Amino acid sequence: MRDSPFQPGAARAATPEFTRAEVALANRNSGALLELLDCDITPTGTHYLLNHFDVPVLRAQDHVLEFDGAFDAPYTLSMAEIMAQPQVTLPVTLECAGNGRAGMEPRPLSMPWMYEAVGTSDWTGTPLAPLLERAKPRGSVQDFAFFGVDFGYDKGIPHHYGRSLTPAEVAGLDALLVWGMNGAPLLPQHGAPLRLIVPGWYGMASVKWLGRITALETRFDGFQQAETYRFRTHKDDEGRPVTQIHVRSLIKPPGVPDWFSRMRRVQAGPVALSGRAWSGGGVPIAKVEVLLDGAWQQAQLAPPQGRYAWTRWQIDWQATPGQHEIACRATDAAGNTQPLTAPYNLGGFANNAPHRVTVEVVD
Amino acid sequence: MRDSPFQPGAARAATPEFTRAEVALANRNSGALLELLDCDITPTGTHYLLNHFDVPVLRAQDHVLEFDGAFDAPYTLSMAEIMAQPQVTLPVTLECAGNGRAGMEPRPLSMPWMYEAVGTSDWTGTPLAPLLERAKPRGSVQDFAFFGVDFGYDKGIPHHYGRSLTPAEVAGLDALLVWGMNGAPLLPQHGAPLRLIVPGWYGMASVKWLGRITALETRFDGFQQAETYRFRTHKDDEGRPVTQIHVRSLIKPPGVPDWFSRMRRVQAGPVALSGRAWSGGGVPIAKVEVLLDGAWQQAQLAPPQGRYAWTRWQIDWQATPGQHEIACRATDAAGNTQPLTAPYNLGGFANNAPHRVTVEVVD
Repeated sequence: MRDSPFQPGAARAATPEFTRAEVALANRNSGALLELLDCDITPTGTHYLLNHFDVPVLRAQDHVLEFDGAFDAPYTLSMAEIMAQPQVTLPVTLECAGNGRAGMEPRPLSMPWMYEAVGTSDWTGTPLAPLLERAKPRGSVQDFAFFGVDFGYDKGIPHHYGRSLTPAEVAGLDALLVWGMNGAPLLPQHGAPLRLIVPGWYGMASVKWLGRITALETRFDGFQQAETYRFRTHKDDEGRPVTQIHVRSLIKPPGVPDWFSRMRRVQAGPVALSGRAWSGGGVPIAKVEVLLDGAWQQAQLAPPQGRYAWTRWQIDWQATPGQHEIACRATDAAGNTQPLTAPYNLGGFANNAPHRVTVEVVD
Repeated sequence: MRDSPFQPGAARAATPEFTRAEVALANRNSGALLELLDCDITPTGTHYLLNHFDVPVLRAQDHVLEFDGAFDAPYTLSMAEIMAQPQVTLPVTLECAGNGRAGMEPRPLSMPWMYEAVGTSDWTGTPLAPLLERAKPRGSVQDFAFFGVDFGYDKGIPHHYGRSLTPAEVAGLDALLVWGMNGAPLLPQHGAPLRLIVPGWYGMASVKWLGRITALETRFDGFQQAETYRFRTHKDDEGRPVTQIHVRSLIKPPGVPDWFSRMRRVQAGPVALSGRAWSGGGVPIAKVEVLLDGAWQQAQLAPPQGRYAWTRWQIDWQATPGQHEIACRATDAAGNTQPLTAPYNLGGFANNAPHRVTVEVVD
C-alpha cells in the first residue's frame, strides 16, 4: 500500500470495541446498502432508518395535524385535507446527523453508524409555509415546534419526539409535509401517515408521525432541540445546534466482497469507480476527489438531479495487483471540503471524514 | 426483581464486547422492529435482511432461470413465463439461522443478531416442484442446487450463493419460486426478480436472485451447503445441517422505551402483553408461556394465520412497581420447547433461548 494521507489508525484503540447496547441499536436501526449507490433513488426498504422510540402504526383516516399555541387562527387538518393541498414531489437526500459516529475517537455511545446513514427518496407532500401562514402566527412567535406521536425517554426525560424551526428558518427552507415516498404511501417506519421533510438539514429535523405544530413565543427547549443534536466539545459546553448537512461523499465499493470483513476483491485492470456526493442547504457539489494510488484525482460529476439530492460521480482507475485503500472527498460550491479528520464533538455528529475502502486487487 | 430461572449473565463476560466487523455487518443487515410484532404481516421495509454479498439490481425483463445438469429436458424460463404459471400467495415466517447468535457464549463472529432476525410476508409465486418435474430429473439425481446471481468470498472461497435440496426434501416441502411480496413486486434486497422460498426452514434455504437450478448426481458440496449452516461443536466436527426453524417466540416490548438502553417503562396496573410464536416444518404452536413475577404463565393463542406463519399470543399482566424481567417461551405441537439455554454451536445457529425484556414499572 502507498503512503496514506490519513493518520494511522492507532487512535482507534482508545474505543476498540462496541457495547451490547450499541449493537442492539444497530440491529434495529438500519443503514443503506452501499452497493446500491448507483440508484438515483434508494430502493424502498433500504433507506436508512433511525428511530428514537417505537415506531407507531397509525391509521391515516384517524390522523389529524393540530396547529396550536401562538396562532391567531389555530386549526386542525385531517389527512384528506392535507392531501388536497397543492402537491409537490422532490428528490431529497437525507442523512442522519450521527452518520460516521463510529469513526470518532473517543466514540460517543449511541447508534454506531459508520458510513451508511444516508438515502435519497422522492418525497411527495405539500409546502409547510402556506399552512403555517393560514393559522396566522402572531408577530411574537419565536419558534414553531413540531411534535411526533412517538414517545419515550432519553436520559430519564419523558417526551414526544419534537424539534423546532424559527420563522426565519421556515422562510428560508423548502420544508414539506409529506405523505408519499417513491410514488407509494409513506411506510410506518418512515413516519406514516405524515412527516416533515426539511431538505438540506440532517434528518433529525424531519419529524416523523407529525401530529402537532405549536407556535411558541419563546425558543423551544424540548429535549431533542436543547439537549441533543448540538455540537458540544465538553459537558458544560452549550454548543451550537446541528442544522445543515455537511458536505460528504461515498464510494460504491468496487468488485465483490468478502462476507465477514467486507474487504473488496477487484480484478486488476480498468475499474469504473462511482459514488455519490451531497452537501446541505441546497449547495451544489463542486468537486469530488478520489484517492487512487496515493494521489487525489478529480472525478467527473453527473448533472445534479435536484437541488437537494445527491450527485453521482465517476472515475476510471487502472487497478494494479496488491492491497489498496481508496477514498473520496467532496467539495461544495460554498468551498467546504471534507476534512481528513472531522472535529470531535460529544454527540458524534457530522463526522464527514472521507469514506475509505480497502481493496485487494488480484491478477 | 424476583428469582429468575435463567443462569446469571456472568458468562457473558467471556465475549463482552463486539468487533468493528460485527458492527459493520449490523449496520448493513437489518432486523425487525419488535414494536411492530402486532402486525400479522411485517410492514414492507422492516422485514429482516441478511445478505451475504452485494445486492444485485436485476431487470426482470432480462432475467432468466436456467435448469441444467442431470435433467433429461433442461430448459430456460423468462420471468414472463414463470409469472404465467399457477400463482399462489402464502404468508410465511422467515427467520435467519443466526438469529440469537449474539446471545451465545463464546459468541461466534458473524452478524451479531440478538432477537430481530425474523419477519412474516405474503409471498407470491408458483410451486417449485412442477417446474422441476417438467425438466425431467434423472433417477440418479441426489441434489438440486439453487444458485443466486450474487457472488463473493467467504473464508477465501469465491462462490455464487448456492444451496441445495434433495428430491425427497423437494417432495416434502412447499417450496415456491417467488416474484411478489406483500402484494407488490419483490424488492431488490429481498431477491428481485426471483427467489426461492422454502417455508418452515431457516432463511438460508430461500435463495435470492435465483438464476440457475442444477440437478446433481452427487450431493451438492457448495460452500454455503457444506461449510456453513451446520451445527458443529468443534472445528473437526462434520456436524448436522441446519434445516427447519426451531420453535421460538418474541414479546412485543410493553410500554415505552429509553432511547439508548431500550429499557421499557410501563405504568403500574393491567398491561396487555402480546407477541408471536412460530416453529419449523409447518408444525403448529401448542403453547406459549410468559414469565411474569417469577412464574411461567400460559398465554392465549390467536387462531393460526397459515401453516407457515407465526401465531399471535396474548396475556394480561398486573404490573407492580419495580424492575421486572419478563420472558416468553413456546412449545410446538411436536413437543419441542424453547430451552432456557440453547446448545452451543460454532456458527451460532438456532439460538432459540427465550426472549427476555427488562421492564421498569412506575406508579
